[in-house]
Amino acid sequence: MAGTKKVAVIGFGNIGSGVVELLYQKGVAGLELARVVDIDLKKKRAVDLPASYLTTDWRQVVNDPEIDIVVELIGGIEPARSILLAAMQNGKDVVTANKRLLAQAGHRVFQLASTLNRRVGFRASFVGCHSLIHEFRQAGTAAKKFRRIYAVLNGTSNYILSTMTREAKGFEEALREAQAKGYAEADPSDDIDGIDTANKIRILLGLISNSYQAVAPFPVEGIRAITLQDIQYATELGYAVKLVGVIEPEEGVFNVAVHPSLVPQVSLLGSLQGAYNGIELEDEYGIVSGLVAPGAGTYPTADAVIKDLLDIAEGRALPMPGSAQELTLGSTEAVERRYYLRFSVVDQAGVLARITDIFWKYHISLAAVIQKEAVSREFVPLVMTTHLAKEGNLQAAIEKVDKLDVVKAKTKIIRILKADT
Amino acid sequence: MAGTKKVAVIGFGNIGSGVVELLYQKGVAGLELARVVDIDLKKKRAVDLPASYLTTDWRQVVNDPEIDIVVELIGGIEPARSILLAAMQNGKDVVTANKRLLAQAGHRVFQLASTLNRRVGFRASFVGCHSLIHEFRQAGTAAKKFRRIYAVLNGTSNYILSTMTREAKGFEEALREAQAKGYAEADPSDDIDGIDTANKIRILLGLISNSYQAVAPFPVEGIRAITLQDIQYATELGYAVKLVGVIEPEEGVFNVAVHPSLVPQVSLLGSLQGAYNGIELEDEYGIVSGLVAPGAGTYPTADAVIKDLLDIAEGRALPMPGSAQELTLGSTEAVERRYYLRFSVVDQAGVLARITDIFWKYHISLAAVIQKEAVSREFVPLVMTTHLAKEGNLQAAIEKVDKLDVVKAKTKIIRILKADT
Repeated sequence: MAGTKKVAVIGFGNIGSGVVELLYQKGVAGLELARVVDIDLKKKRAVDLPASYLTTDWRQVVNDPEIDIVVELIGGIEPARSILLAAMQNGKDVVTANKRLLAQAGHRVFQLASTLNRRVGFRASFVGCHSLIHEFRQAGTAAKKFRRIYAVLNGTSNYILSTMTREAKGFEEALREAQAKGYAEADPSDDIDGIDTANKIRILLGLISNSYQAVAPFPVEGIRAITLQDIQYATELGYAVKLVGVIEPEEGVFNVAVHPSLVPQVSLLGSLQGAYNGIELEDEYGIVSGLVAPGAGTYPTADAVIKDLLDIAEGRALPMPGSAQELTLGSTEAVERRYYLRFSVVDQAGVLARITDIFWKYHISLAAVIQKEAVSREFVPLVMTTHLAKEGNLQAAIEKVDKLDVVKAKTKIIRILKADT
Repeated sequence: MAGTKKVAVIGFGNIGSGVVELLYQKGVAGLELARVVDIDLKKKRAVDLPASYLTTDWRQVVNDPEIDIVVELIGGIEPARSILLAAMQNGKDVVTANKRLLAQAGHRVFQLASTLNRRVGFRASFVGCHSLIHEFRQAGTAAKKFRRIYAVLNGTSNYILSTMTREAKGFEEALREAQAKGYAEADPSDDIDGIDTANKIRILLGLISNSYQAVAPFPVEGIRAITLQDIQYATELGYAVKLVGVIEPEEGVFNVAVHPSLVPQVSLLGSLQGAYNGIELEDEYGIVSGLVAPGAGTYPTADAVIKDLLDIAEGRALPMPGSAQELTLGSTEAVERRYYLRFSVVDQAGVLARITDIFWKYHISLAAVIQKEAVSREFVPLVMTTHLAKEGNLQAAIEKVDKLDVVKAKTKIIRILKADT
């Protein structure tokens, strides 16, 4: 331990105020708050800080040889990226909560860190998953192998899906409720379209593979198209609907996707309530473990920043991708899954036979069928779950089914994930 | 890193074979298997090892200056304790999977380690909780504060309770099934009477408090008295029955107990299936996190041993209690809980009034009542749940109730724990 480390915090919003409160008001041994940067110095904050600490000029801080560690909490790509790169070039370690930056420009950040032997703390970009990052920390010495990771990583989506399930509300109504309560932003697209989950999955993939190479796009589907009807059918079948990020290594490639999924109601992921995050990991021996934690919030995020700062101050290694190895994604068509399918068919004899006939040709077999008595004569929901089938076959079969004259709307497809905890 | 560390494994049973397989057959960088000790060298093992590695004499190994780390996997108190103490006195670090030893003689082991500055790895005594131990690792620098820990730590009990719930079986039948499948031992007392859970809770308490002082006895109740009827009432009320270890710090003391508990069905602990372990932790800010992992098994245990060995070989600190501070337990009477109560009463008018009259005097209010139509005239189950009440008041009230002439058997009391994940 080389004495007290001087810390500059760039970005004095909610998280920044939380970090300043812990560093300056509460005090953390080994860490000293030196400067705080924000473009708006007049705004009233939750924490009192003498004006002498404050500046609007991040360059001044990043060039200050007194500063040991720079904490970036402004979000977005620029100037956040320039701040991190310049700070490292000036010999400082950095800590960031910026998952969008790491997902999009992580290769630049980690490559520079690797070249200059600097440390990048990013627990706070991934609050719900501290412990998992710890588990992968040993990856440098003994690469942790695993069969699959299923992760619910977006609190907003989970809050909306939980509300729809518990209160029998439609998607739009649940979204408005989430916005009213501050769980969803005015523009909720990042959260409900799966982008935030995909960003976290990219960061996780970097950690797992120990590679900072950018990854090709992978399939990302959000929750806008999930209806109350789907949730009610899922409940009847014993499942909960969750937005899940999936990473499955397979013979040198990674199958990666983000999509709404049916998971057993009574399971770690199925029982996740409100804004919690959850991860389930199956290792190479088939041993499953999981963890649950709040996915966001001022205190958990500020706490994650402090933990990174302490690791740096006390000379502990931080988990970060350290190689330039290429990452190859697997072909989506070859992935085998079970499926929930909701058809919109006319209520007439022979419909089921025509669908199962197509399925038979594509080697798809049924696990369950729910057809209720029709309320109207022209539009009946017909719900099926399949046994394991190849995604390519399933998509081809549904394309055929959707062209049948008895099918009146696009068939809804939701993947069913097994869950062991 | 100071070159390869020489490892001796004492105890060549299932776990020992797993460790030998990883160290000798698979190979782990930085670690070299040097000796293996067992009293029976003739038994057929799952792993082939040249006879030159084997000996029956643990003293020879513990006194061998070539050995850097001793792994104790024989279980029981003696000679396990002598092995650990002698190894440390001879300048070696030690790794153990022996939770009974650590629960009963941990103060001697950790005190000596503290005096001699040796490291004790004991992840394997606590397989389901790796990540939690990691979380507490930083305790040395920034003491992690929390409000409560609820932990399901015994796989056998959880398997039995899950089977009773899922298959509507009685306790005895579920126990026999667990024994037939190898999930319960011929003498299952350690598991089903809560002793194993209590041992783990003692180890956890040491880590949390950073104290290796022995702790006074605390209330421990197992699952023998849980009936199928209790499980069915719990299900009807939305709860699952689990054997839970509880640690709640309160104004300088710790409330500690192990008992069967009702937890919400759809929650991290409530959804634990089979032989899994789960922990839920609420920190000082009210943030709840949890984790789920297999509680036992050859591979997870051997993997935990290897992780400890790697931490030692690579010079990382191991989490272990390091002070001799006294630990004080709180008074059970003052603890506030909600309760599930099953009365065995005669089916006659005024019974409910006589019970609620007693409750009123002890400030106990009811949350729910289930009384079904009587099948027989003389013995009706009456089930109630209470709002928060002091344990002392509840026990005093039940003592009074059980003396009423209309009450025909001892009232069954099960505590209800809140759960946020």
